[in-house]
Amino acid sequence: MVHTITEHEVLTAVLRVGDLDSGRPRLHVLLWQRAREPQLGRWSLPGGLLRGNEDITASARRQLAEKVDLREIAHLEQLAVFSAPDRVPDVRTIASTFLGLVPSPADPELPSDTHWHPVDDLPPMAFDHETMVAHAHSRLVAKMSYTNIGFALAPTEFILSTLRDIYSVVLGHQVDATNLQRVLVRRGVITRTGTTARSGRSGGRPAARYRFTESQLRVTDEFAALRPPGWVGLES
Amino acid sequence: MVHTITEHEVLTAVLRVGDLDSGRPRLHVLLWQRAREPQLGRWSLPGGLLRGNEDITASARRQLAEKVDLREIAHLEQLAVFSAPDRVPDVRTIASTFLGLVPSPADPELPSDTHWHPVDDLPPMAFDHETMVAHAHSRLVAKMSYTNIGFALAPTEFILSTLRDIYSVVLGHQVDATNLQRVLVRRGVITRTGTTARSGRSGGRPAARYRFTESQLRVTDEFAALRPPGWVGLES
Repeated sequence: MVHTITEHEVLTAVLRVGDLDSGRPRLHVLLWQRAREPQLGRWSLPGGLLRGNEDITASARRQLAEKVDLREIAHLEQLAVFSAPDRVPDVRTIASTFLGLVPSPADPELPSDTHWHPVDDLPPMAFDHETMVAHAHSRLVAKMSYTNIGFALAPTEFILSTLRDIYSVVLGHQVDATNLQRVLVRRGVITRTGTTARSGRSGGRPAARYRFTESQLRVTDEFAALRPPGWVGLES
Repeated sequence: MVHTITEHEVLTAVLRVGDLDSGRPRLHVLLWQRAREPQLGRWSLPGGLLRGNEDITASARRQLAEKVDLREIAHLEQLAVFSAPDRVPDVRTIASTFLGLVPSPADPELPSDTHWHPVDDLPPMAFDHETMVAHAHSRLVAKMSYTNIGFALAPTEFILSTLRDIYSVVLGHQVDATNLQRVLVRRGVITRTGTTARSGRSGGRPAARYRFTESQLRVTDEFAALRPPGWVGLES
């Protein structure tokens, strides 16, 4: 019998836009520091071994709740399986990974061995976890352009400059707020709340507040040629 | 120790548009019939247990080559992990699944226990494999609208009515060939070859032939507002 018995671990890259009100927002990932060998002191994605009575999604949620006291994940999706035979020493361990998103400015209390780290300035990481973070980031970047996934990163209500900061930070380049507003409103992704922010940073006239229309992931730009006959969507 | 030792299997939903020249094309999935208990005679996705010296992608490719003699996969991507504790009897087995695509009219020779089945008319399937097929189909449907994934289903060169048939069959509704051509050419997804088909089915004037510009998956419709400054793409 050449096949192999494995352990299965479930790891989640939880991403969040931090320091949103500071003027220098950054994309952060939640990491905890290994307290034992191998690779004592290295930073890891939160997670652990799958239990006998749970599937991988239940395992991811349990571990985030137990180990980092994180219960408010706005979006959680399967990312990829990491299965190189030698990815960890000793018993072969296959990792199922998730992408988790936490909205700003939610700032959950964290245990002392757990911290948010900037995705573009990671500390030395355990095993293949740095690749997992890169994978999570690139999945998020892709989904920013064809889904409404921003709902899971933004505050419940926001002004456009805040949303622009979120998009800019995730994408890694400056995004124009006017274009962003035009496209997202046309696609029905964001809606005006009818209220305005009490004061803008720049002290000009009050800025309109927006919210995401939905808080479930959907593809936002099925192109017209592919729509079924009689399709009635948010854009029509 | 409450965690559990598992076996790991790798299964692939290989999809193809069959009967493309018949006037009644359908989306097919490749299945083989179980030759042993449990669930003897039920239809399964091709695959099997992960070996000690391979990762899941290598395993998927090996098993498709060995078991169904399928070596020409135009696109292969990780789909999802199926991990319900009771998904198969006896030893807990976690399944990593892949979506595989084979172009038309490639019609590889198959072993006698292996057949293409219409996705919308599946035979009784083993374990949770029917859910896996549904998952593969819905991933493909989504990617038809925001990527160039059609390259992996289409013949190397094709006329527009053929491409329309492929899109229509995958999406499950009639697509307009003129709109499709307009959008895919504008996005740089398809290009005219400069040649024409010798004769159309309807016997009109010769139809222009096209090909996919690339045979690597990419997101085709990052919207302009999200492009980096100075971005130069196929559409500019």
